[in-house]
Amino acid sequence: MSEDSRQGPANGPSRRRFLTSAAALGAGSVAAGMARAQTADPLITEIQPWAQAFGEGVDATPYGLPIDFESDVIRRNVPWLTADATSSINFTPIHALDGTITPQGCAFERHHSGAIELRKQDYRLMINGLVDQPLVFTYEDLERFPRENHVYFCECAANTGMEWAGAQLNGAQFTHGMIHNMEYSGIPLRTLLEEAGLGAAGDLEDKWVYVEGADASSNGRSIPMAKALDDVLVAFKANGEALRKEHGYPVRLVVPGWEGNMWVKWLRRIEVTNQAVESREETSKYTDVLEDGTARKWTWVMDAKSVVTSPSPQSPITHGKGPLVITGLAWSGHGAITRVDVSKDGGKTWETARLAKPGEKMALTRFYLDTEWDGEDMLLQSRAMDETGYVQPTKAQLRDVRGLNSIYHNNCIQTWHVKPSGEAENVEVS
Amino acid sequence: MSEDSRQGPANGPSRRRFLTSAAALGAGSVAAGMARAQTADPLITEIQPWAQAFGEGVDATPYGLPIDFESDVIRRNVPWLTADATSSINFTPIHALDGTITPQGCAFERHHSGAIELRKQDYRLMINGLVDQPLVFTYEDLERFPRENHVYFCECAANTGMEWAGAQLNGAQFTHGMIHNMEYSGIPLRTLLEEAGLGAAGDLEDKWVYVEGADASSNGRSIPMAKALDDVLVAFKANGEALRKEHGYPVRLVVPGWEGNMWVKWLRRIEVTNQAVESREETSKYTDVLEDGTARKWTWVMDAKSVVTSPSPQSPITHGKGPLVITGLAWSGHGAITRVDVSKDGGKTWETARLAKPGEKMALTRFYLDTEWDGEDMLLQSRAMDETGYVQPTKAQLRDVRGLNSIYHNNCIQTWHVKPSGEAENVEVS
Repeated sequence: MSEDSRQGPANGPSRRRFLTSAAALGAGSVAAGMARAQTADPLITEIQPWAQAFGEGVDATPYGLPIDFESDVIRRNVPWLTADATSSINFTPIHALDGTITPQGCAFERHHSGAIELRKQDYRLMINGLVDQPLVFTYEDLERFPRENHVYFCECAANTGMEWAGAQLNGAQFTHGMIHNMEYSGIPLRTLLEEAGLGAAGDLEDKWVYVEGADASSNGRSIPMAKALDDVLVAFKANGEALRKEHGYPVRLVVPGWEGNMWVKWLRRIEVTNQAVESREETSKYTDVLEDGTARKWTWVMDAKSVVTSPSPQSPITHGKGPLVITGLAWSGHGAITRVDVSKDGGKTWETARLAKPGEKMALTRFYLDTEWDGEDMLLQSRAMDETGYVQPTKAQLRDVRGLNSIYHNNCIQTWHVKPSGEAENVEVS
Repeated sequence: MSEDSRQGPANGPSRRRFLTSAAALGAGSVAAGMARAQTADPLITEIQPWAQAFGEGVDATPYGLPIDFESDVIRRNVPWLTADATSSINFTPIHALDGTITPQGCAFERHHSGAIELRKQDYRLMINGLVDQPLVFTYEDLERFPRENHVYFCECAANTGMEWAGAQLNGAQFTHGMIHNMEYSGIPLRTLLEEAGLGAAGDLEDKWVYVEGADASSNGRSIPMAKALDDVLVAFKANGEALRKEHGYPVRLVVPGWEGNMWVKWLRRIEVTNQAVESREETSKYTDVLEDGTARKWTWVMDAKSVVTSPSPQSPITHGKGPLVITGLAWSGHGAITRVDVSKDGGKTWETARLAKPGEKMALTRFYLDTEWDGEDMLLQSRAMDETGYVQPTKAQLRDVRGLNSIYHNNCIQTWHVKPSGEAENVEVS
């Protein structure tokens, strides 16, 4: 066998024998100095109970849940953040996940008037306004149109919003967990608009669509026609299966790279209009008040951003110094992530991380830095770059431009202080 | 806006107004002849209860499950197929899924002695045999090695096994549902073998690894060293989160493209050996008895295969004639799917389907045929081709070579008889 065939593309660091904590069984052990005497480990030398009895049969869980030992890997909310339970937020446990796909069961929720139960047979989607022929689709109608599949991230505009004022929430789940990444199956919105006919709309350059949901809030948002005809999906599956109730069952809008509140759930109506509606959700909410009191409007695209998910406050280092995998997520609403750098000293020096796969447009990218920890303090940061050349800003850079009045669109570099104990804390560096 | 910017890559058929069943609201309606008078549909004209009250808050499901309306989309078993509950099989509801990712909660299970509960702190992985230094890893040790992320299908060798004798099981879930497709995060097995050191093994060309699980069956299998050093993963996450109990929590082997029983769950030990062990699972089981009584052995790779998932017996056509989306899955253990053809007349004529994305190596590929149904009988088939040029065989071709004694490795073309009523049935065509 040639050396070539034994060497994988991402296998550079693994070819040296680097894990001195792996216990050896024989003489001349690489782990001779280790406290753990694995040769006498009954988990190796004795037959364990689970190897002596039948386990659970396949009837046990027709639809399975995580094992009890993982019961802390759940969506969590921060009760003081929002006014009432029906309009509040919970957060994806990104500190405990790996890879890029977010299971629906732990993908964050944000409702404007709670998650409703809407049967497929009661579902209707109206397309009206400046169209040649207003149409109403049943769910069954939608199933007859050509579908596409795409993996996209969905990030709430308020993700990391509490950090404008300082380092407030102690965990990646709470600072950056209003994000998920799923494989959607759905119909291009373009297809449905063309079914209704856009001749009546005239010049499409300055036209809009207004989209709203079937819940009490209706959560109406205006979307420029160019985006509506580009990559927006009318989706009915996520990660292969039906959307969950909390994610808009049976049909939601997917607006790749744009803020999550535009991904209207329980999608009810799409109106082609001459101008933006200037709804509550795009005037008093989801605008960014600057230092001088004026507001940024139409800040739809989520800029490039990243965060180290482990180590982090909820995922401390427990194994002491030596080999350490630093990992995290990066994403950009403007396209693909091209590079992520990691700093251990609060941004003074940087190392380029390994991307698990080449970045895909408007989808989460997993990065790893396979490194050694000397057991000393670290100020861990990550910095994402996207295909437009944009570089994720520091908190200071962002505040210089945007002031301190904002809630939304905080994409600054996050810092975790990792202590010699392995514990980590949310901090700011000047 | 130019025509170009309005036209997506897979959007050919959608640019004509083809869905005459979508009901129109105005005069001159495209749906003038339709029975449904949508203009008086109270689901459009009246405010519905779900738009008048708050829905469920974000505290409701810290780890969510599918909505009750989807309670039939679950793993199902066929009680008469296997001897007892602990060694039996259930099937992924592929007839109801779209896209390519399989959620863990409905991904098929096959256990040899039931699913065991093994805590991370009780987990040990031994590497021994012809290595320079036998090693035992804890779960925490494994977390310190460089990781990779890959999406792979896992198919049981017995998938479609009951169809050797005839058309027996009436549903894609039961004929083809011993398959799932997930994004794994794990360590290349190569990395761990090199950590133990392969100098002691000498020439690696003829060496093997023997892998076994911590459950009572141990389910030991021999894997040639070339595969072990190529793309095998020691995985601890699937679709981002911890493996479920039934999928081998906390650690399983991922053996891309090879039969599912080699993907050892609750992975306990990897021994480097001079020769194959010839275990029960690779002699009396998982070999293919031919017509003359001799057996094919070492039939590890799952050949190219496909199936139409909808319409199918569990997913009939309910909307009558007109636009119809025919969809299904294709995969190959030899690499990427390059093309899928669909026949409506039992293999006499074929149309090339649209692949939702270019095929990826050893991963499920979703195909669509966006077509019109004339309301007449169809004998629906799909035929996959992979990057090696291999073409999925007919049942007759496969039986000519392999006889009727086999259980495993049935990758023949499947036929669904779709009737004028829209119902579908598992049939054979000569």
